[in-house]
Amino acid sequence: MAAKLQGIFAPTLVPLDDRGQINEGELRRFISWLIDKGIHGLYPNGSCGEFIRFTAEERRRITQITCDEARGRVPILAGAAEANVKETLAACEAYAEMGATAAAIVSPYYYKLSPESVYAYFAEIARHSVLDLTLYNIPMFASPIDVPTIRRLAEFPRIIGIKDSSGDLAFMMRMIAAVRPIRPDFSFLTGWEAVLAPMLMIGCDGGTNATSNVVPEVTRRIYELCRAGKFEEAMEWQRRVLELFDMMLYPFEFPNGFRTGIELRGFRFGKGRQPLTPAQQAEGAALASVLQCILADFNVVDRPAAGCAPRTGQPQTDKIEQMVYEVMHVLEKRGVL
Amino acid sequence: MAAKLQGIFAPTLVPLDDRGQINEGELRRFISWLIDKGIHGLYPNGSCGEFIRFTAEERRRITQITCDEARGRVPILAGAAEANVKETLAACEAYAEMGATAAAIVSPYYYKLSPESVYAYFAEIARHSVLDLTLYNIPMFASPIDVPTIRRLAEFPRIIGIKDSSGDLAFMMRMIAAVRPIRPDFSFLTGWEAVLAPMLMIGCDGGTNATSNVVPEVTRRIYELCRAGKFEEAMEWQRRVLELFDMMLYPFEFPNGFRTGIELRGFRFGKGRQPLTPAQQAEGAALASVLQCILADFNVVDRPAAGCAPRTGQPQTDKIEQMVYEVMHVLEKRGVL
Amino acid sequence: MAAKLQGIFAPTLVPLDDRGQINEGELRRFISWLIDKGIHGLYPNGSCGEFIRFTAEERRRITQITCDEARGRVPILAGAAEANVKETLAACEAYAEMGATAAAIVSPYYYKLSPESVYAYFAEIARHSVLDLTLYNIPMFASPIDVPTIRRLAEFPRIIGIKDSSGDLAFMMRMIAAVRPIRPDFSFLTGWEAVLAPMLMIGCDGGTNATSNVVPEVTRRIYELCRAGKFEEAMEWQRRVLELFDMMLYPFEFPNGFRTGIELRGFRFGKGRQPLTPAQQAEGAALASVLQCILADFNVVDRPAAGCAPRTGQPQTDKIEQMVYEVMHVLEKRGVL
Amino acid sequence: MAAKLQGIFAPTLVPLDDRGQINEGELRRFISWLIDKGIHGLYPNGSCGEFIRFTAEERRRITQITCDEARGRVPILAGAAEANVKETLAACEAYAEMGATAAAIVSPYYYKLSPESVYAYFAEIARHSVLDLTLYNIPMFASPIDVPTIRRLAEFPRIIGIKDSSGDLAFMMRMIAAVRPIRPDFSFLTGWEAVLAPMLMIGCDGGTNATSNVVPEVTRRIYELCRAGKFEEAMEWQRRVLELFDMMLYPFEFPNGFRTGIELRGFRFGKGRQPLTPAQQAEGAALASVLQCILADFNVVDRPAAGCAPRTGQPQTDKIEQMVYEVMHVLEKRGVL
Repeated sequence: MAAKLQGIFAPTLVPLDDRGQINEGELRRFISWLIDKGIHGLYPNGSCGEFIRFTAEERRRITQITCDEARGRVPILAGAAEANVKETLAACEAYAEMGATAAAIVSPYYYKLSPESVYAYFAEIARHSVLDLTLYNIPMFASPIDVPTIRRLAEFPRIIGIKDSSGDLAFMMRMIAAVRPIRPDFSFLTGWEAVLAPMLMIGCDGGTNATSNVVPEVTRRIYELCRAGKFEEAMEWQRRVLELFDMMLYPFEFPNGFRTGIELRGFRFGKGRQPLTPAQQAEGAALASVLQCILADFNVVDRPAAGCAPRTGQPQTDKIEQMVYEVMHVLEKRGVL
Repeated sequence: MAAKLQGIFAPTLVPLDDRGQINEGELRRFISWLIDKGIHGLYPNGSCGEFIRFTAEERRRITQITCDEARGRVPILAGAAEANVKETLAACEAYAEMGATAAAIVSPYYYKLSPESVYAYFAEIARHSVLDLTLYNIPMFASPIDVPTIRRLAEFPRIIGIKDSSGDLAFMMRMIAAVRPIRPDFSFLTGWEAVLAPMLMIGCDGGTNATSNVVPEVTRRIYELCRAGKFEEAMEWQRRVLELFDMMLYPFEFPNGFRTGIELRGFRFGKGRQPLTPAQQAEGAALASVLQCILADFNVVDRPAAGCAPRTGQPQTDKIEQMVYEVMHVLEKRGVL
Repeated sequence: MAAKLQGIFAPTLVPLDDRGQINEGELRRFISWLIDKGIHGLYPNGSCGEFIRFTAEERRRITQITCDEARGRVPILAGAAEANVKETLAACEAYAEMGATAAAIVSPYYYKLSPESVYAYFAEIARHSVLDLTLYNIPMFASPIDVPTIRRLAEFPRIIGIKDSSGDLAFMMRMIAAVRPIRPDFSFLTGWEAVLAPMLMIGCDGGTNATSNVVPEVTRRIYELCRAGKFEEAMEWQRRVLELFDMMLYPFEFPNGFRTGIELRGFRFGKGRQPLTPAQQAEGAALASVLQCILADFNVVDRPAAGCAPRTGQPQTDKIEQMVYEVMHVLEKRGVL
Repeated sequence: MAAKLQGIFAPTLVPLDDRGQINEGELRRFISWLIDKGIHGLYPNGSCGEFIRFTAEERRRITQITCDEARGRVPILAGAAEANVKETLAACEAYAEMGATAAAIVSPYYYKLSPESVYAYFAEIARHSVLDLTLYNIPMFASPIDVPTIRRLAEFPRIIGIKDSSGDLAFMMRMIAAVRPIRPDFSFLTGWEAVLAPMLMIGCDGGTNATSNVVPEVTRRIYELCRAGKFEEAMEWQRRVLELFDMMLYPFEFPNGFRTGIELRGFRFGKGRQPLTPAQQAEGAALASVLQCILADFNVVDRPAAGCAPRTGQPQTDKIEQMVYEVMHVLEKRGVL
């Protein structure tokens, strides 16, 4: 029996080249960097990985590159959100051969399915998969998986865990109360890093968080502090992660804020596949500067040349203040002020 | 310049064989039956067509069969909801060669995008497509297209119409008021047959309605009566369509009620690709009987052997009453009653 | 047995004096003006009437003034949304003595109650009220009344109608289908004038619309045209009412847009009881100018001295364009341009 | 300057006699019992206190009784959700004379107001109140108070704290981050006991929780354990409180589950003012039995005579299992089994 999934997983984004194709070299460099920074596992083809914007072939290639580069150093939960059960099972088979630890299956999306249908869908996959499975509950984007359904699904040995991105602590407690007594090996991972430390303290086994692509050393530290019972210290980091997360999540179109954060860490991730208007591109550039200031406070990047305006924690306000700051800096340099 | 899209389009479902594969023979038979019944156009790969549960290759094959069988008798709006802009443009190119009238593009789903991003997405496709495009607004499943966005998009000549499944008459009036002055050729099709007649009376050009798969003769009649200004008569049919629609939409998992309705019309459409639990299958069988009673009142199918219980218009109540009725019938036949 | 409720009812706003107290003289003048303009009935203490911002005593006084001024010329549906059943029954008794036609009872708000509890609430009132009752369904603000519940409640002879502000035509059709067969005298009034004409065409008996406070002659005309089967002509007015309604509803804090509209018709309604920031007051003044332009097109008020900018139907855009127009006008007058 | 509000406050329910009137004797007995059990403060006229179902006079009487019975032993936050600013200020004045610590003001409800209007409302009250104020954010029932608005309102010295019933930890962290630097005396109380312990650990000053009416000794223990840094032990109680809370909140119509819980503790609270159908009353009786079993596990009440069925934590399932258990018990006693 496999070890229980635990720790900090990175739901990896995909670097693209100038033609919008997967940039394999940069993806490999990024994966090894994450592992070197101490990440406990990888999660390709999740929401951050924009699985829905890649073809079925591309999703396999992403998993292949990830498994190949990881070389067994960390477990890999590979997203297999294919068109239907048959295609999903085929992906599971392929991922098993590539060496993935488990296939991560998002709840059915587009149609809003009833709990009974959500159960039927996962149960059918669980009965036939050759690879272990983790469920992915993200009610803002896909049909919700409720507590009775997760309880029923926990009876399938193939299903070994769930990633929950609701951010709802009470829901997490209810899931754990319903499942852990019958499946102590079942893994609960939170996808909402705004509350990573509290989730770990109430019994989560780890996190699968977009922010771990940008500051893997920080989310890992929160994990270790919580495991060591140093909750106050963990919360100090948590409060700073919240500011960073809010800045990458809300003012940008998802997952562009995280893409920008990764670029600030020294990777060339290119433009995403969702087109942007010129107005959005200009907005993104202005926001990147605030993001750089936040990351500089973590000592992982340099501050902008112009310096950093004081921050309020409100993304739009902070963006405007930083822009004013930078304009002032230019004027000063030109001797106008 | 092409003729304006108008009339009743069927967003076709896809028959599957026992192995879950596209049943080409039955699909061809169904398409020709729809055209024979007077449907004005076809809309493969929509929500009814479960586009998301087919592979990219299968979606092309469905369009190919549809175009081939239609043989130019009616216009075809072929759904091209591919993974990204590049794939969508390739599908448009393929559909153009197959003879489709336009590609129908659903608003981005899964992620909930801002109006600016919805605009950017459609604008990028409109700039490069070799085929005319219709937009598809279905806010219950995908990022909403708001009035200012549709107004901006109407400036692309390639975009020739919109299917709106919100069912919101005021929204439809606002769209028409914003777009028709600058694009009199732009077509507005409603996807919510619960209000087909009122939508036609306020200025819609037609409908693209799931129910048209089941009673194409009725939705066409509503269209013709409205065009002739016979609104009172149209409403008599509309009220009956509402009962039928509610019965196929709400108690079943979408689009299974419509699948069942088509089967009652004499086609073998097989099981859908979303798995069902035994409980759901039993429920579906019980509901089919009520559906048969409703369709019998349209004189398009026979009544069940046991006869039909009086209906209340509340699906769950009607299901239970019909089940009681059928049990009574069996007991009577056995001489128990 | 009383005559069925039908036609256009005005859900009256309440004029306040400089101290924020009910301005009785202006309220009387307003009521008589509405009746002179042809309104079919009055509806004090509804959402427009800000019932929740008045004390129980003030609500009675508003009803008293309304009944007194109307002098039996039109029926009065007087809102009685009191704290609990006992208080509501006392209000019904008081309203009966004042000569109100019926008490209008909003569904329980604040708590979101189940359909069973919504039923229990109205049923308890219906069993004991000395006055006829109309239900008020406004799901955006209060617990929704669903179709099975309205069907159950229609068994109480005391309940004689419903005002529905959902704006959902299919829902209205479902209610009518469920209730009219057993209660042909039951009245269905729509509270959503964005779709007044379509609602009348599908079988509504009338409307209770905020806009009827501002242009009673127009909503009444729509009613008469629909009753005469002149739907096309009714729709011409409907489209203009939609622009007016959108302008009064969305950019203002409800019901301030309607208050502004009434003031433009020549009444002094004063400030509402919900405080406004200086920013909101400035915004309101700018919007009033666009509103005046729309009302001028109905020939019920003069155009602003500066004239009117072309409108797009998008409130925020129109506001900015009108402001530019007025600034230009001032500059022209000063000879700057 | 007053001491900062902290600890466990009980948002008290109101006992009614057979005629539906306030049962003063039982209310006094209840208040003293809560104080004896160690509650840190009282919160009359909140959502639990069904403020909306009492008249303005009754709300004052409830506050009067509460202040009088408490005799200064604990602080009192008295709900003053009156019809408008003027009435609210009058209530504040009356409460100040009664000896209340602060008036608790719920965000405007019924209408869904913009953040600017929410600000304007509270600011107007804060400028003129003679009594300190606490805000009450309960987005499921009333206009939400967002982070920038709470930040602006924290500039009024009269506003000394907020009760937040969203249950959203990230939101609480954002509020604290925005306000504490400028107002270290500002108090943050959570109204969502499903996550009481985590909220205390991330920095909340206390809780104002319905469950504290039923097991004040338990919520107080959670508070003390968290203050002492014994988070693991606090979580053991928290998990049990979650089961109890879910059982009182979801299957009952709010706040009847809490009313039932209080009755099990030995108080006669009578029927609430919202009418119930016979079906709801029967349901309530069945649920009370499960509730008794949960409370028996806290050693605060006896188990039902029939004993307790094993629980799953799913209220509806547990109700049915307990009913089977009790029927079996009766049959056993009768010698049938």
